[in-house]
Amino acid sequence: MTPETIQAAHDRIRPYIHRTPVLTNHTLDALAGCEIYFKCENFQKIGAFKARGGLNAVLQLTPDELRAGITTHSSGNHAQAIAYAARQVGAPAYIVMPRTAPQVKKDAVLGYGAEVIECEPTLEAREMGVQAVIARTGATMIHPFDDDRVIAGQATAAKELIDDAGQDVSFDWILAPVGGGGLLSGTALSAHYFSPTTKVMAGEPEGAADAVLSFKSGKVEKAPYIDTIADGLMTNLSERTLAIIRQHVSDIKTVSETEIVAAMRLIWERMKIIIEPSCAVPFAVVLKHKDLFAGHKVGIILTGGNVDLGKLPF
Amino acid sequence: MTPETIQAAHDRIRPYIHRTPVLTNHTLDALAGCEIYFKCENFQKIGAFKARGGLNAVLQLTPDELRAGITTHSSGNHAQAIAYAARQVGAPAYIVMPRTAPQVKKDAVLGYGAEVIECEPTLEAREMGVQAVIARTGATMIHPFDDDRVIAGQATAAKELIDDAGQDVSFDWILAPVGGGGLLSGTALSAHYFSPTTKVMAGEPEGAADAVLSFKSGKVEKAPYIDTIADGLMTNLSERTLAIIRQHVSDIKTVSETEIVAAMRLIWERMKIIIEPSCAVPFAVVLKHKDLFAGHKVGIILTGGNVDLGKLPF
Repeated sequence: MTPETIQAAHDRIRPYIHRTPVLTNHTLDALAGCEIYFKCENFQKIGAFKARGGLNAVLQLTPDELRAGITTHSSGNHAQAIAYAARQVGAPAYIVMPRTAPQVKKDAVLGYGAEVIECEPTLEAREMGVQAVIARTGATMIHPFDDDRVIAGQATAAKELIDDAGQDVSFDWILAPVGGGGLLSGTALSAHYFSPTTKVMAGEPEGAADAVLSFKSGKVEKAPYIDTIADGLMTNLSERTLAIIRQHVSDIKTVSETEIVAAMRLIWERMKIIIEPSCAVPFAVVLKHKDLFAGHKVGIILTGGNVDLGKLPF
Repeated sequence: MTPETIQAAHDRIRPYIHRTPVLTNHTLDALAGCEIYFKCENFQKIGAFKARGGLNAVLQLTPDELRAGITTHSSGNHAQAIAYAARQVGAPAYIVMPRTAPQVKKDAVLGYGAEVIECEPTLEAREMGVQAVIARTGATMIHPFDDDRVIAGQATAAKELIDDAGQDVSFDWILAPVGGGGLLSGTALSAHYFSPTTKVMAGEPEGAADAVLSFKSGKVEKAPYIDTIADGLMTNLSERTLAIIRQHVSDIKTVSETEIVAAMRLIWERMKIIIEPSCAVPFAVVLKHKDLFAGHKVGIILTGGNVDLGKLPF
């Protein structure tokens, strides 16, 4: 992927996304011992950065493909992203969701005019659901991260962060969380192309620690166990995202559930903004490894703000 | 109070406050049937608009007064506002707080270097506590709302809202919540002087409905009963604030606890920002009286974001 690919993605999706603000906070800087710039994708369309990747893929489909529609399976933000992107181009969307997904997430997808197909909450059932949709409609499947168009779309978040910081701020680090690796791959590519002196680090929950293993072994590994509040980060990498991450990411560090919740609470209390547990993970890494970041300029992608207010960890 | 008084207050406090953003949200506009501009004082220093009034009063004290220090009694944002303002000018601050106030609020005041004097949770004990501080130190008492300097400071929030909306937006309405009436008085004065075609309305909880009675009778009344989650709005008006409100406010409308919590939840979920229950009250009024605001441009002061995340109503 070239810098032109990411620039083209940005030009393509710009009319449909918010240029989200970059916020700073003196109290959190003092706590962390560095200068943090938070890229607020919790304020993005659909409440998460996934709108970027979904749009960049959907906007490159042919008229014939759009007529047949778009499908994916997701219990989370990618479902809304595809439903939202499909609505922008007037294409039908068929979203396969586990029947256990919160009603509020199903309602959000329905609200964008998509069809929701419920399935059992297993990966097999989800993939079979998508196959059935394709057999019935001829729809095009858009994967949540194993897709260069999606990665290029997610890359635009870090690109904006770098652009908006201006000439005065040269980031020593940019941090993102890692689930399937779409955001992390895109972030690493944008840093590599648009801010070559910036190093990229990922944060991962101890309770979904697959990427840190894959990063070391060079093979796509599974997590030893899955138990985390950061429900956006449970997925494994793909060969595609692992290759980009191995090439352009400096390190991946894990944090405990206690550290994630404490970091999330600090951001809620001090910045007065609502973020998902997943996006507290990189800030938890910074608080845990203050020596690494001392005095540095640090960008953090806050990935989304879609939380169930009825189930908070406080 | 003249427009010059408010302009001077703004010039005086500007170096010490944030120019908070004005946010809009398509989904909430669609729900409400009007165009809402939210002035986000939840992002203000100390997490609430009270920083404005506290600063404007403290910054007008003489060197002798500052040397003796500043005192007030408050269980809430005014305590932090005075502690913060005192620190900016290097003056000692003595804050009388009920022993039942949440530790997190006491810690915040201590964090600004103020001395906290605990007392029993009654108005009498609080006032005696302040008298004892004054006898001991000669400190100057700054009242949370019954003070023209404080009112002029609070007025700067609406002034910024009007200024930042620019020539293109002429507000039909500006709404603020009403407790002691400092913010509402200031808001009404700023609208009167800086946007004379704008009407001002207040929202008040049914469970602290003193201002709506006072507004009608012309005397400072007490609420029939006090029972509301909007803990910043339990106070009565003073003669001073009632006079300004009677002259410059169009109406005061009450909302139920259910309406307050529903409005608060909508703002949290859709805007991804944290607001106190008190500042959901005006938005609840707009949702309850859609006919009054249909198609109008409506400014709402979101007063603060200091909530106890361990005690949420969701």
